[in-house]
Amino acid sequence: MLTYSGLLSVDAMAENSDEINECKAEEETEKNWNRTSHTHSFLESLTPSDREGNSSTQSSHRLLAYSDALISIIATVMILPVAHTKLEDDEELKESLQQLLTTKIAVYLMTFLIVTVAWAAHIRLFQVIERIDDFLALLNLACMMLITFLPYTFSLMATFPENILGILLFCACVIVIGMIQAVIVVYGFSHPFLLNDQIQMSDNQDFYKWHILKVIFRVPILCLIAIIFSFIFTPLSYVLLAIVVFLPYISQSVKWCCRKATGQQEDSPDAILLYSYHPNEPLSKERVEAFSDGVYAIVATLLILDICEDNVPDPKVVQEKFNGRLVEALQEFGPEFLAYFGSFATVGLLWFVHHSLFLHVTKTTRLMGLLNTFSLAFVGGLPLAYQLTHEFPHNSRNELEAIQISCSIIFLAGVFQLAIWVAALFGERAALHPYVRYSGRDHAFMFAKLALYPCVALGTFVLTCFLTRFSAPIFHLMEITVPFAFLLLRLLVRASLALLRLLLSPIRRAVHSARGENETYRPLSEEAT
Amino acid sequence: MLTYSGLLSVDAMAENSDEINECKAEEETEKNWNRTSHTHSFLESLTPSDREGNSSTQSSHRLLAYSDALISIIATVMILPVAHTKLEDDEELKESLQQLLTTKIAVYLMTFLIVTVAWAAHIRLFQVIERIDDFLALLNLACMMLITFLPYTFSLMATFPENILGILLFCACVIVIGMIQAVIVVYGFSHPFLLNDQIQMSDNQDFYKWHILKVIFRVPILCLIAIIFSFIFTPLSYVLLAIVVFLPYISQSVKWCCRKATGQQEDSPDAILLYSYHPNEPLSKERVEAFSDGVYAIVATLLILDICEDNVPDPKVVQEKFNGRLVEALQEFGPEFLAYFGSFATVGLLWFVHHSLFLHVTKTTRLMGLLNTFSLAFVGGLPLAYQLTHEFPHNSRNELEAIQISCSIIFLAGVFQLAIWVAALFGERAALHPYVRYSGRDHAFMFAKLALYPCVALGTFVLTCFLTRFSAPIFHLMEITVPFAFLLLRLLVRASLALLRLLLSPIRRAVHSARGENETYRPLSEEAT
Repeated sequence: MLTYSGLLSVDAMAENSDEINECKAEEETEKNWNRTSHTHSFLESLTPSDREGNSSTQSSHRLLAYSDALISIIATVMILPVAHTKLEDDEELKESLQQLLTTKIAVYLMTFLIVTVAWAAHIRLFQVIERIDDFLALLNLACMMLITFLPYTFSLMATFPENILGILLFCACVIVIGMIQAVIVVYGFSHPFLLNDQIQMSDNQDFYKWHILKVIFRVPILCLIAIIFSFIFTPLSYVLLAIVVFLPYISQSVKWCCRKATGQQEDSPDAILLYSYHPNEPLSKERVEAFSDGVYAIVATLLILDICEDNVPDPKVVQEKFNGRLVEALQEFGPEFLAYFGSFATVGLLWFVHHSLFLHVTKTTRLMGLLNTFSLAFVGGLPLAYQLTHEFPHNSRNELEAIQISCSIIFLAGVFQLAIWVAALFGERAALHPYVRYSGRDHAFMFAKLALYPCVALGTFVLTCFLTRFSAPIFHLMEITVPFAFLLLRLLVRASLALLRLLLSPIRRAVHSARGENETYRPLSEEAT
Repeated sequence: MLTYSGLLSVDAMAENSDEINECKAEEETEKNWNRTSHTHSFLESLTPSDREGNSSTQSSHRLLAYSDALISIIATVMILPVAHTKLEDDEELKESLQQLLTTKIAVYLMTFLIVTVAWAAHIRLFQVIERIDDFLALLNLACMMLITFLPYTFSLMATFPENILGILLFCACVIVIGMIQAVIVVYGFSHPFLLNDQIQMSDNQDFYKWHILKVIFRVPILCLIAIIFSFIFTPLSYVLLAIVVFLPYISQSVKWCCRKATGQQEDSPDAILLYSYHPNEPLSKERVEAFSDGVYAIVATLLILDICEDNVPDPKVVQEKFNGRLVEALQEFGPEFLAYFGSFATVGLLWFVHHSLFLHVTKTTRLMGLLNTFSLAFVGGLPLAYQLTHEFPHNSRNELEAIQISCSIIFLAGVFQLAIWVAALFGERAALHPYVRYSGRDHAFMFAKLALYPCVALGTFVLTCFLTRFSAPIFHLMEITVPFAFLLLRLLVRASLALLRLLLSPIRRAVHSARGENETYRPLSEEAT
């Protein structure tokens, strides 16, 4: 589907090519362009001097897409140190996992969280600043550079918890990011045509400017305090940093609880104007999709990054050890390839489910965004889990545990996807396409799609608990059958609905005849849920 | 800016929420939805039975964005084995580069080329199939999985040129990809509402179907022949594979030459209907942008991937070697951090130039797409080049050569960006926004933006040739000043234009007075080019 801007330019192109022979004067085509392009026609409404000085005003669409791509890559990168930790074969998996869990996995999850918090702040900022120019584009790039550096400061903190260098670096980055954001806001308010239309129209722009700056400066000030305390009493500065990370979530849930406790109706204050978080506030659906696509894409290809680099055997080794038989040499890497295809298929299918779900979501709330983040954080761990399943000797306890960890990760990633749908269902009616609401005609089908991975993962987990000796074959069978299950899902859902109807109809008929009523049947999909 | 679908759903949401209390019947909201949504209103025009069976028809927008992300990551991945090749310090860089050049860099460039060819085929296919359903989405994922595996087969081929396994694997992948594409086409033509509107309206759909299938099967058949020859005479099968890779480019340039030679006017046959390449055929601008964004994003973060993994010192080492002084331990990694920030800034600014350019491009031709691919291939090499500049001792010949290689790569990446603009300028008038055409008011500014990096890189290169002893400081100075040059570029361009006018006006006045004419001045920007 074309973007709006795409449509406009096609439009403008058609008009231009028609007139290309007629109009010679530059002014005429320029006027014509302005007439067809909405962003430029907006510029027309400004005073000429304003327009003259800022002809480079641009839609921020692509800048945001690029930022989403960068942030999603950085969010998933910290899984690499976890994946590359070499586990000893003779060591028990549990012990080595203990060591992993304490530092690297914690770093991964913390990074994922802090990066998504930075991303949420970025979304919020560019909901206020809707148009950009070159200066803002360059400032945004500087901001991105600092955000991509945050994971490193986190791993320093995790490796050297006693040393304050990690805290200092992290706080310095956050303070500079805050200052850049403040410059963006000040610049935006001094060039009002860059702002959100709503703020642009309002009379008390100054009030909003100071309010937004106050909200932005909360975080750098907390970091400054954390720096001061890091010289005096380090643990307190960690507490302050945790508050920085969780601040939006804390304030959000406190507000929500207050509202529920006092029984107050939602007055839904204007979130953009007041620059604050609300659980039901719509998030840009497009940006959530772009961020998710980035995470799914980088996670799907994480293993091939390693394979291309490490799994091409050395020609000398092949000559000496395998007498030049390449196929034999490659058989050593067999498990890696299996892990690659397994994880690619799983990540791809989880993307497919996500895609189907968001196709029917018409409005993304902050709660749904949060659930999506959790789901993505588990998706990021998948390649690692798949690689573990093939690294240990058959029928060892390690292999069993690796398979069970994989199942748990798939289960959690799938369950959080399901939770997004449930949140949309229980939230507002407007958040879902009518087809997939209760009693919509694709309701049962969507439920089956979302429930397939959690159910299969749970089933595999339970089976491997009982049939420990066959855990690897069960897991591989699961990997192979799930894609086919997705292909045949529509048929399966129809068949099971028909079966359900067959089973239920005698009971219902009995109930009906007992009541003596002659009701029409309720729609099928209601029975299925 | 909202996408078209975004606008529609907002539209639909507003309508839904208005009517939410009134309409109770499901049919009513469903009808309402169909009225506001274009893709669904299209479904309305079909027979009810068609509609019933295919309610899951979807816009392919997000599927294509995800495919773009996957393909762009895979295209740039093969730079990693190049970057991780350890160069010996005492060895001359030239010698080790010889070895690198012969295999790894060749593999990188070949991968980039084959992946972009696969991407072009993917674009072409989904210009015919404009809507997707679940089945097509899953088939596309399978296709992506095989495409991501292609780089590995290439590195096998490069490492073991004598062994036919690489050829067999590559050909097997391509054949399966071709078969999946054929299935997609057959499925699309058996569900005509998935097709491009133009084909859908035409009477001889069967003719187009067979024509497209014939074009698709050309490549797998060539691969099949290559497999057969690989058992008889291996070099011939390499020639065949090269033909496979270059086939579209060869046929394109042959056609172009024929047309120029016979002096025939461009009859511009319908490229989508005939499923063939034409140099002036419009490429989807949105997909070119998405692919470029993906490459720029992964390249910008490639170095932080390594830094997060390798450059966190071991606590034991810090304790023993540096007496627990972390800052001293980190100073060892200083050059890596410098390389990261340098390459991030350069890649970010090249993205910024690309973004500015494509903001003013209204139509992307295939030639521009090809030039963009070349530019991106050099951008992919940047992190490696930057890392090299910091790996060698100061004032060594190696350092000088690494700096000169970096300059060349920046120069080439920038020059190909400039070439895109030139192609757009010399191509059709409709390919550019009036502002940046000849005598447009931003023409000189855009030229300065595009020319800045090539000029600076060339200047640095020449300077390092003369001032060999100061090559490193010159290079670092370049890194630091370029971002500021971009910030101040508009001012600089204005100043230099004013200067040019001042210098030229007495000359011109003299010419004018000599001729006795009283012409009006030509627009400024014409003088600048």
